[in-house]
Amino acid sequence: MSKEDFIIKAFLNEKNGDDGAIVDKWCFSKDLFFENVHFKRAWFTLEQIAVKAMLVNISDAIVMNAKPKYALLGLALPKNLSENEIEALHKGFLKTAKKFDIQIIGGDTISNDKIDISITIISKLNGKAVFRKGLKKGHLLAYTGRLGRSLKGLEILQNGGALSLNHVFIKPRLKPDFFYELAPFVSCAMDISDGLSKDLSRLLAQNKCGVSWLKKLSDNVLYSGEEYEILFGFDEKERHNIENIAKKHGVKLNIFAKAEKGRYEFKGKEHHF
Amino acid sequence: MSKEDFIIKAFLNEKNGDDGAIVDKWCFSKDLFFENVHFKRAWFTLEQIAVKAMLVNISDAIVMNAKPKYALLGLALPKNLSENEIEALHKGFLKTAKKFDIQIIGGDTISNDKIDISITIISKLNGKAVFRKGLKKGHLLAYTGRLGRSLKGLEILQNGGALSLNHVFIKPRLKPDFFYELAPFVSCAMDISDGLSKDLSRLLAQNKCGVSWLKKLSDNVLYSGEEYEILFGFDEKERHNIENIAKKHGVKLNIFAKAEKGRYEFKGKEHHF
Repeated sequence: MSKEDFIIKAFLNEKNGDDGAIVDKWCFSKDLFFENVHFKRAWFTLEQIAVKAMLVNISDAIVMNAKPKYALLGLALPKNLSENEIEALHKGFLKTAKKFDIQIIGGDTISNDKIDISITIISKLNGKAVFRKGLKKGHLLAYTGRLGRSLKGLEILQNGGALSLNHVFIKPRLKPDFFYELAPFVSCAMDISDGLSKDLSRLLAQNKCGVSWLKKLSDNVLYSGEEYEILFGFDEKERHNIENIAKKHGVKLNIFAKAEKGRYEFKGKEHHF
Repeated sequence: MSKEDFIIKAFLNEKNGDDGAIVDKWCFSKDLFFENVHFKRAWFTLEQIAVKAMLVNISDAIVMNAKPKYALLGLALPKNLSENEIEALHKGFLKTAKKFDIQIIGGDTISNDKIDISITIISKLNGKAVFRKGLKKGHLLAYTGRLGRSLKGLEILQNGGALSLNHVFIKPRLKPDFFYELAPFVSCAMDISDGLSKDLSRLLAQNKCGVSWLKKLSDNVLYSGEEYEILFGFDEKERHNIENIAKKHGVKLNIFAKAEKGRYEFKGKEHHF
């Protein structure tokens, strides 16, 4: 068992184990975005760090079918950041908050040896919550977008290269409008933060399902983390609806597998550098 | 302006600037508890780290007059922690959660070079919220308990000494029952996390008040951080009520100043090591 799974198991209860936790009509989610774990300073501007920290958290709310409303920011910042650098961080937080209509209502700021960000997003459910649990044998599995670019971007950075400002590794593309319309027709969903293979293994384990592949996926697609595309399952009878919604929103839809009896084991390596 | 004040100012809105943020009947609070910022590994067992991380967060909820219900845990942990060490952490989180009737409903776990904990506490208001704002000129100011021991404990640790298991620096003493009964009679409150002088300066600034001292307080009392005692203000006509509630709960009450026209400036040093 990985340490993360070991830890998740210790706190297991009916609200835990999803991208967000549902209480009444609220969804609470929290992700960490740490220097030298999720990013290196050389790879991102301060503003980009703040923007991505917000987006990876907002992503959790979206895949639960919840609309972000409030955020709490935990900021651990080196003492030697200049006021300009702190302002660049602010700008990233505030412009992303504004874009998603989020109010930043609190948090904590401390001095630290590196930039470690922890964000809590408080969201309101947009109808019924979508959980990781809900997949049934026979349901189709799909993911959005083109997977693989995040891993390629990471490799370029690790080899000393640079990425364009809008590269998906720098700035994930979230699909709130698409997913809010899609949500009534899916049986389960989660965002792809640790790579399709790893996240699929989690989704299938939670639903006690195995998988039969409809396509052969490349390693690049399977093991690319931090994509923040959406992995979801649905009953075949919703296929037409789902294809139409994807088309309407210009979202590339990849129906790649069918859930069936059995188990699926993750065999790749964890993606964080 | 300190960096923290600079950051708080950037995000200023009517919900921000308190120990917790109030939305409907909920209170949301988030504090960081980071290795080499708030604690050193040599000073705490793993269980004590988890317990204190929980308590400093629960403290925020209590002083807002809110009862903790749920927690999200952000855990950044070194890869070399053993399963026994992780279990000791779990034990600290779970036993504190149980004691305060909190359900741990989610969060995030990552690998990191040190133990950095971020906790979000979701609480339900117990009647009316108590804010930092509300102090009026003429109101009395009080703090609970005996301040100074936390600073002394920190100094002992910094000089290579050890503290007893129950030392207040290791395990703050929260006073939920006392404060929930007291709340209707106070005009403002906050916990004393950065030292009475620093926290008083924040409270007074937020209420545009100065202070006239009723007692001379020692530096030890003024500059001892991480006490998690409660600083609050109240109208003199509530004094009898408040004294009775403190007596009933065995809480030492120190009425030390009166709010008045003017300003109070913090002159000490920040307490984090």
